[in-house]
Amino acid sequence: MILQGIYPIVPTPFLDDGSLDPASIERLIAFMAARRVHGLAIMGALGEGHKLTEPERREVISVYRSQLPEEMQLIVGVRAPATDPAATMACAARDQGADAILLGPPGVQADAALAGYYQRVSDAVRIPCIIHDYPAVTGIRMSVELIARIAATASHINHIKLEDPPTGMKMDALAQAAGPALKVFGALGGMYAFEELERGAVGIMTGFVYAELLVELFDRCKQGHWPQAAALFYDIVPLIRWEFQTGIGVSLRKHILKRLGVFTTAAVRHPGPNADPKTVDQLFRIVRHLVDKGYALDM
Amino acid sequence: MILQGIYPIVPTPFLDDGSLDPASIERLIAFMAARRVHGLAIMGALGEGHKLTEPERREVISVYRSQLPEEMQLIVGVRAPATDPAATMACAARDQGADAILLGPPGVQADAALAGYYQRVSDAVRIPCIIHDYPAVTGIRMSVELIARIAATASHINHIKLEDPPTGMKMDALAQAAGPALKVFGALGGMYAFEELERGAVGIMTGFVYAELLVELFDRCKQGHWPQAAALFYDIVPLIRWEFQTGIGVSLRKHILKRLGVFTTAAVRHPGPNADPKTVDQLFRIVRHLVDKGYALDM
Amino acid sequence: MILQGIYPIVPTPFLDDGSLDPASIERLIAFMAARRVHGLAIMGALGEGHKLTEPERREVISVYRSQLPEEMQLIVGVRAPATDPAATMACAARDQGADAILLGPPGVQADAALAGYYQRVSDAVRIPCIIHDYPAVTGIRMSVELIARIAATASHINHIKLEDPPTGMKMDALAQAAGPALKVFGALGGMYAFEELERGAVGIMTGFVYAELLVELFDRCKQGHWPQAAALFYDIVPLIRWEFQTGIGVSLRKHILKRLGVFTTAAVRHPGPNADPKTVDQLFRIVRHLVDKGYALDM
Amino acid sequence: MILQGIYPIVPTPFLDDGSLDPASIERLIAFMAARRVHGLAIMGALGEGHKLTEPERREVISVYRSQLPEEMQLIVGVRAPATDPAATMACAARDQGADAILLGPPGVQADAALAGYYQRVSDAVRIPCIIHDYPAVTGIRMSVELIARIAATASHINHIKLEDPPTGMKMDALAQAAGPALKVFGALGGMYAFEELERGAVGIMTGFVYAELLVELFDRCKQGHWPQAAALFYDIVPLIRWEFQTGIGVSLRKHILKRLGVFTTAAVRHPGPNADPKTVDQLFRIVRHLVDKGYALDM
Repeated sequence: MILQGIYPIVPTPFLDDGSLDPASIERLIAFMAARRVHGLAIMGALGEGHKLTEPERREVISVYRSQLPEEMQLIVGVRAPATDPAATMACAARDQGADAILLGPPGVQADAALAGYYQRVSDAVRIPCIIHDYPAVTGIRMSVELIARIAATASHINHIKLEDPPTGMKMDALAQAAGPALKVFGALGGMYAFEELERGAVGIMTGFVYAELLVELFDRCKQGHWPQAAALFYDIVPLIRWEFQTGIGVSLRKHILKRLGVFTTAAVRHPGPNADPKTVDQLFRIVRHLVDKGYALDM
Repeated sequence: MILQGIYPIVPTPFLDDGSLDPASIERLIAFMAARRVHGLAIMGALGEGHKLTEPERREVISVYRSQLPEEMQLIVGVRAPATDPAATMACAARDQGADAILLGPPGVQADAALAGYYQRVSDAVRIPCIIHDYPAVTGIRMSVELIARIAATASHINHIKLEDPPTGMKMDALAQAAGPALKVFGALGGMYAFEELERGAVGIMTGFVYAELLVELFDRCKQGHWPQAAALFYDIVPLIRWEFQTGIGVSLRKHILKRLGVFTTAAVRHPGPNADPKTVDQLFRIVRHLVDKGYALDM
Repeated sequence: MILQGIYPIVPTPFLDDGSLDPASIERLIAFMAARRVHGLAIMGALGEGHKLTEPERREVISVYRSQLPEEMQLIVGVRAPATDPAATMACAARDQGADAILLGPPGVQADAALAGYYQRVSDAVRIPCIIHDYPAVTGIRMSVELIARIAATASHINHIKLEDPPTGMKMDALAQAAGPALKVFGALGGMYAFEELERGAVGIMTGFVYAELLVELFDRCKQGHWPQAAALFYDIVPLIRWEFQTGIGVSLRKHILKRLGVFTTAAVRHPGPNADPKTVDQLFRIVRHLVDKGYALDM
Repeated sequence: MILQGIYPIVPTPFLDDGSLDPASIERLIAFMAARRVHGLAIMGALGEGHKLTEPERREVISVYRSQLPEEMQLIVGVRAPATDPAATMACAARDQGADAILLGPPGVQADAALAGYYQRVSDAVRIPCIIHDYPAVTGIRMSVELIARIAATASHINHIKLEDPPTGMKMDALAQAAGPALKVFGALGGMYAFEELERGAVGIMTGFVYAELLVELFDRCKQGHWPQAAALFYDIVPLIRWEFQTGIGVSLRKHILKRLGVFTTAAVRHPGPNADPKTVDQLFRIVRHLVDKGYALDM
């Protein structure tokens, strides 16, 4: 299966009483489908996957799978502190219809353990597994050599979501070490999306809510319209940056989706954190600025 | 409910195919009951709780609850990256018959988040919750002030399993800040058990397999036989130290239990790690040394 | 003394043989003075202060002090793993003419130790000390309560360089806890400069080389021309972001300064890291984009 | 040069006003020489090397070099956040007469950077450099492969002070990967000294003050008297453990040396920490226990 294009990492909606909000998920799917994204990645860190119980997890996957348009792929985030539960979670997601697994590492900084984990889980699930390389969140550093070794030996691992900056230089080193078989997705909120696409990324997999802008960026790059892509990208970096703020990124995205009528609430599960109203206002000031420039953005 | 005495943190047995081994759990319960421990703590880090799926977790608790002698208390380890799943796990354990929860912190180094987590989870579960203060494993530092605040406001939190060395000085600081209402259990493999009991610990909650030695230590301290307690303790520190080795402690304990006929295998779930044969031999050399000294230890 | 405005954190130039390059320092001073910045901060992390020997450190301070125009303030970075050497370094910098100290914490995550360190070093040096709150680099988290306590008790501590995102919310919490006496500088490469100035920051202290853009931003904010400030800021965020990249920020800034004829080389002391040529090209493409928009930037 | 045997890591004495105390250093040298240790390692973490200024550092080395008996080797600890200052510090120590350098890593978790640092510093200093592998203190993990690579390419690196537990298994892996050319010193306070010597360690390099006990252990092992070595070791583990306590190890060792009339004070430089009196009493109770058993220990 080929993964390519723009895959938003989406937040999980809750009602004010803290329970799951499936109706908001359905609206989110329609919202993203209308933006022509290539698929959705659920239950990543941004999706508060680690704050869900097992039954909630199943319910979320079930709603996505049943509502997602056929042409959109469903990627499910899996991360566990050991190999067996990761394999179990991945297989359960596959059995519910996941097209691919976004597979985060266990909390063990040792190459043999990491290689074994990726090998075993991908062998068990037998659908594409995307290495999640995000040391700022996972605390785990994966060297170019280790990633190349995993990609060479694990037959279902051909993709990486690369969030170990500076990403461009690691992309080139990976291309050298692992060859073209390893496909790279840019992420980090989209902060370096243009430069990553220029270096050969096959797409962007991140939580930026105004995903139509990334789709347009991807299309321009794909068509080789680099200057037009650059101009677009430079315009939207201020917004990308603000959505991507440390800690409160989940809260901010939920505030956008609530204001746009997609989510019922902006509730984030404890211990949060939550963005304050001023931070939300500052976000929409940037959207307004883009609208004034001629971008057709909802707000 | 009063928690006091020796509570082994017990490992979870697996068969060679990786599946749970309930028969070994039953033998382990009998083994520990014969050593007169006051209860068992299951599903701590040593119990590979983080490597179990939710159904496996339920099965483990169920076997323990159904087989544990009435007079022994069952403590169940709970740790989750957010408040809701921790509360769900804790309530499920309570509903299965847990007497108390050993509650590890979420991975957020912020006092307000930690205080909120402990308050909410203990409010939800309404049985005694023991603060698990083990920065070397959790990565989270809890100050004396924070712990005292939690103990003062959360009505079901009156115990702490203290593994933030040097433990003696933190015990005194906690006694100053939180008063006698907060009861301290020593841990860290038993490395400082005697000195902790001398400073007022109400017991030891740790994975040392030769638990009869800690029971004897506890009894001598309780009866005020301090010199005899010291003599015993100094004899057994070499063994305590060897069992407690970083990383391979789980594997070592399983090797002991296998050799003693309690566990079917010494299997540790990936990514392990496993102790090598020489390390296991070095362990039993220490046991032999104690036997030669007159201690009636199985080996 | 009042610190207010734009204070570039400047890199330290080396020749190709690795030795200090005082001539480049002199050109850098002239370069920055021409951009109307309010002072310079030397020997921060960006200044590779931790890669200099004590005599080199003295030489660097000496060149800056002797060449810096009277109206510009000299801030010297000090960070040491313990209190005594930090005090010694700070006093030596003061004796060489430093106007203020940018004081990083020791590597001890304990409130009493941190408070004692800031109190003692600032008592010893008796010139303004700026708390450097940058957990991503120092590994040390300073809570709002701790910072407020330090600011209340240490008479020479009235400023903080705040790099613990999200910065806006921490600024408001600090304003609540410490009152207006504690002045906040924004930093983090300038990534949130506009929003920080809007929330009351007294200036920006960061390594962005095109400092004239921050000076212009500061002036517009100061004059209350917020929409014009926003428009400027949104234009320059793509460049700010690219200069600020993790790890290679020092290298990138040196490449700019070399290309502009300010530095003789772009050498970074081992273990670097160094930006690759493509990353440097991508930087100047953004500068070109700004020039095309009408900004008078050197390149 | 051959390094072999017992090398105490020694603390640095201060007077009550915080200044260096050379008279105590002279007494310490005589004290350790009388215990027949093979050399001394100064300015390690235990030596508060990171709390000394450059001139203090020079003075300390100078006193040691001038007073140390000819047959004892002087090892000087060097650790710096970058390669150049580490090389400068190492060369300065060599020029003052250091026989070898105990070389800690920079704070960069990247194999190429670490290999480059060790290669360059050892090439510059051209006397034996001992890799300091102590992740709990340095935060840096060095894999067996990396260490073997460094040992193979850097001609002055043939020793490692191994403090990455479990040490025995890493020793065997290193023997496999690097061969007999790489000599291993045990450390970690002596916690695993006997088992390390059994696995082939060439000595122990650690801060245990009652060094005559380690010398006796080493001699018995060297003569192949393993059971007698084991018996001795098991007796002293309780004391080893107590001296080695996290954080307060420096303070405890200074309290011993003060009580024995070697150090004028037990002062530790801020931010300490300091052991409380009870912890010191508990230490001497263990010494008393050993004396009662027939060990001729000062107290």
